Amino acid sequence: MTIDTAISELSAFLGDRLSRSKSDLDAHGASETWYAPAPPDAVAYPESTEEVARILAICTAHGCPVVAFGAGTSLEGQTSAVAGGVTLDFARMNKVLAIHQGDMEAVVQPGLTREELNRELRDTGLFFSVDPGANASLGGMAATRASGTTALRYGTIRENILALEVVLADGRVIRTGSGAKKSAAGYDLTGLFLGSEGTLGIITELTVKLRGQPEAVSAGVCAFGAMSDAVETVVAVIQMGIPMARMEFVDADTVRAVNAYSGTDLPEQPHLFVEFHGSDASAAEDAARFGELAAEVGASDVRTATRTEDRTALWTARHHAYWACLGLKPGATAVVTDVCVPISRLAEAVEETRADIAASHIPGPILGHVGDGNFHAILLVEAGNEADLAEARRLASRMAERALRMGGTITGEHGIGLGKLGYMEAEHGEAWAVMGEIKRTLDPAGILNPGKLVRQN
Amino acid sequence: MTIDTAISELSAFLGDRLSRSKSDLDAHGASETWYAPAPPDAVAYPESTEEVARILAICTAHGCPVVAFGAGTSLEGQTSAVAGGVTLDFARMNKVLAIHQGDMEAVVQPGLTREELNRELRDTGLFFSVDPGANASLGGMAATRASGTTALRYGTIRENILALEVVLADGRVIRTGSGAKKSAAGYDLTGLFLGSEGTLGIITELTVKLRGQPEAVSAGVCAFGAMSDAVETVVAVIQMGIPMARMEFVDADTVRAVNAYSGTDLPEQPHLFVEFHGSDASAAEDAARFGELAAEVGASDVRTATRTEDRTALWTARHHAYWACLGLKPGATAVVTDVCVPISRLAEAVEETRADIAASHIPGPILGHVGDGNFHAILLVEAGNEADLAEARRLASRMAERALRMGGTITGEHGIGLGKLGYMEAEHGEAWAVMGEIKRTLDPAGILNPGKLVRQN
Ligand SMILES: Cc1cc2nc3c(=O)[nH]c(=O)nc-3n(C[C@H](O)[C@H](O)[C@H](O)COP(=O)(O)OP(=O)(O)OC[C@H]3O[C@@H](n4cnc5c(N)ncnc54)[C@H](O)[C@@H]3O)c2cc1C
Ligand SMILES: Cc1cc2nc3c(=O)[nH]c(=O)nc-3n(C[C@H](O)[C@H](O)[C@H](O)COP(=O)(O)OP(=O)(O)OC[C@H]3O[C@@H](n4cnc5c(N)ncnc54)[C@H](O)[C@@H]3O)c2cc1C
Repeated sequence: MTIDTAISELSAFLGDRLSRSKSDLDAHGASETWYAPAPPDAVAYPESTEEVARILAICTAHGCPVVAFGAGTSLEGQTSAVAGGVTLDFARMNKVLAIHQGDMEAVVQPGLTREELNRELRDTGLFFSVDPGANASLGGMAATRASGTTALRYGTIRENILALEVVLADGRVIRTGSGAKKSAAGYDLTGLFLGSEGTLGIITELTVKLRGQPEAVSAGVCAFGAMSDAVETVVAVIQMGIPMARMEFVDADTVRAVNAYSGTDLPEQPHLFVEFHGSDASAAEDAARFGELAAEVGASDVRTATRTEDRTALWTARHHAYWACLGLKPGATAVVTDVCVPISRLAEAVEETRADIAASHIPGPILGHVGDGNFHAILLVEAGNEADLAEARRLASRMAERALRMGGTITGEHGIGLGKLGYMEAEHGEAWAVMGEIKRTLDPAGILNPGKLVRQN
Repeated sequence: MTIDTAISELSAFLGDRLSRSKSDLDAHGASETWYAPAPPDAVAYPESTEEVARILAICTAHGCPVVAFGAGTSLEGQTSAVAGGVTLDFARMNKVLAIHQGDMEAVVQPGLTREELNRELRDTGLFFSVDPGANASLGGMAATRASGTTALRYGTIRENILALEVVLADGRVIRTGSGAKKSAAGYDLTGLFLGSEGTLGIITELTVKLRGQPEAVSAGVCAFGAMSDAVETVVAVIQMGIPMARMEFVDADTVRAVNAYSGTDLPEQPHLFVEFHGSDASAAEDAARFGELAAEVGASDVRTATRTEDRTALWTARHHAYWACLGLKPGATAVVTDVCVPISRLAEAVEETRADIAASHIPGPILGHVGDGNFHAILLVEAGNEADLAEARRLASRMAERALRMGGTITGEHGIGLGKLGYMEAEHGEAWAVMGEIKRTLDPAGILNPGKLVRQN
């Protein structure tokens, strides 16, 4: 068999860095969410770009599927090895290669996680801003076009990657971008690989932008009587141009889950979690303007935190919200939705989603990076319960359709993987076909993460 | 002949919107800079996406080159019809189709210029931020990945375009992106068309981001004793994270030219032109911090302007700098360079460039968007003087090589066109070949702006 031939060639040069142990295969075939396990035939742990190039050349020659794997935290089944083959785990390519402090840039390997990077940057006065909550790898974040809580101020991964080294399916190694802050030198190949979910090439090095630690950071939470009040506040804040660093919405169900999971005692009402970065004066001014707007719609229980520990506690609670929500239904797994709509439609989109879920038999706390118009319902389904799953998928479908009807997108940040394939045609029409044409140009043998993102033929 | 067949088919349905008048052909074959005229065989003035689609289908069928044309202000010969064919002038597709005030977005046709757009936005409290100085068209700015004086704060065109409508070479019409602020739904086709200089598809509609007019704007100019002091100030400002809206460098030669052209009386020394946007308090705070840094290196003659008229006068002088420089050498045309380097190498890059030009026989004022690490030398050559031109090209080459050696790029914002083709391999290596593969996938007949950006075979 072709996969077997490839694997024996790989094993000849990778030695024990090619694993076929059941536990390894299972760990790499599992998913954070509801997707059925789909283990690969082998897991490779490359240590260099050259090894990755050699692996890809072999796999292309034998038609063996290759699935890149960072931290495995993606939510749409992106790392499932649905056609078998080899998973490339970047655990051993996780170094910071250079920190260019004066240029506010770092060069890193793809397996490095964002928390590891920020740990290394601790004493530099700089930080890497993209924050998807989960401790994702830089390669995985780049490959899913991740964003998270700070995109409002610092942009998504798209605004924070300057250059990539990429190995193409045939083993060629290319560099995209440069150390310059901007360039008009031809097609934006960096941008093309961002969000390509391992289907166009394998990222082996990234040059990332760093940000200066703000002089002052202040954070706050406030409770609202109604979800619509919270969302109205968000819309007003955006339209007034208050430079928020973070602005996260959680609904009452999410608060209940977070209180139980993290031992907090927030009132069980919709909340906004906010953060301001700037000079002492500007952060205070921004916080005051935000406070006024929130007060106008009757926000109460405003708690602020300026000490690092208090802020960390606050954001840890928010970052654990996903696991907290899972705890609402013991033994549950989740269908996680991820729509993003124009800000003027946000209130309507959230309200209609809320009503839909309220009328259904499954729980679905809502939370999100609402400053971008992006929110999630965590639809809780009992593992193996087909009725739950069908209902969750129906709700997810309605959310996706609603987002498209409102001029938005089916995924603000989680990507396509397996879960959103069914809506790609609706979102993109003929442009989806163009994605397929590009895919076939760069990966004619179709070995790179088959079954994901583009139309399957 | 195939071009003739295409033109007669086009003329049958475009009527007098297909022009073959000599003056029209000449106007569209000319260039802002030193490139030899290369007129097309005809100029079409489409009025709708459908017409563009029909034109492209006809041109693909007959192998007739198609060159898109916005305002014709590009500097690298991008609109030269080097292989003849039809130029598509978007003068009649220049409408604002919608302004979504709440979402801070506008939908526009490609022929609209940025000044026209900002005029239409005057009463909304919003503005379109990308400002290349010239009154470029939105389609041209998108197609060249333009930036300009405000990229420092608001990003380049890449950060300010949400969605495109594009007609492909075969006449298919696709939509990329959506009205949502971010998306992870598959390959970033919007990004792929930005900077593609009309070689991958023709942009027929753009959804652009708008920004809120800042509450307060203050501007200033200050003179420095030495160029290195000005550049050092820039580097310090960036590293301290002072949120500048604009930070432009002009050297003493440029000041001399500007004084002569615009009637200003700036001392003939290197200057920085700066601008701050924010609340009254934050703009004042930022200006004060900038002032302190500049004073530390001995900046003098700091003039500030807060009234709109004064600021406009200041920026008009800056925006006219290109034409002012041309005035330094009567009858001259220019080879305009456009390198961008990591900020830590900026001082060195500018100094070495200055020394190179000083040792040459042609004038070359230096100016640029130094906050991004991006600067230009306007190398003045007498029209038709081969020795001048050879010298300018030698200097330009050295600048490009220097930028690459320093980890930068051969073009920060002007693009490739004809002028930078020769450095593409040096900048991108195998990635340039990948650009060619993508080009051939989307335009197999090679009709879209042939001779530009990708390797010619
Ligand atoms: C609790 C929780 C909260 C989350 N919150 C957010 C959020 O706020 N925002 C957000 O954007 N996401 C969020 N996510 C999703 C997830 O964290 C992101 O999708 C993340 O970017 C995935 O990174 P990873 O390293 O885990 O990638 P993986 O899951 O390992 O891989 C993801 C995809 O990238 C590909 N890939 C990985 N490495 C490479 C490489 N080197 N080259 C090419 N392709 C590669 C894989 O093949 C796969 O297709 C959340 C997840 C969880 C569990
Ligand atoms: C004085 C002066 C100062 C300048 N300063 C700057 C600056 O600061 N920053 C900067 O970035 N640039 C600058 N430029 C260059 C120029 O203004 C930009 O390149 C601008 O983006 C070109 O826009 P345009 O409408 O004139 O495009 P054109 O010159 O008409 O076309 C440029 C390219 O885009 C393609 N194109 C045009 N319209 C479309 C379309 N609808 N679909 C597909 N392709 C299309 C053309 O085929 C061509 O390849 C300056 C130019 C001058 C003369």
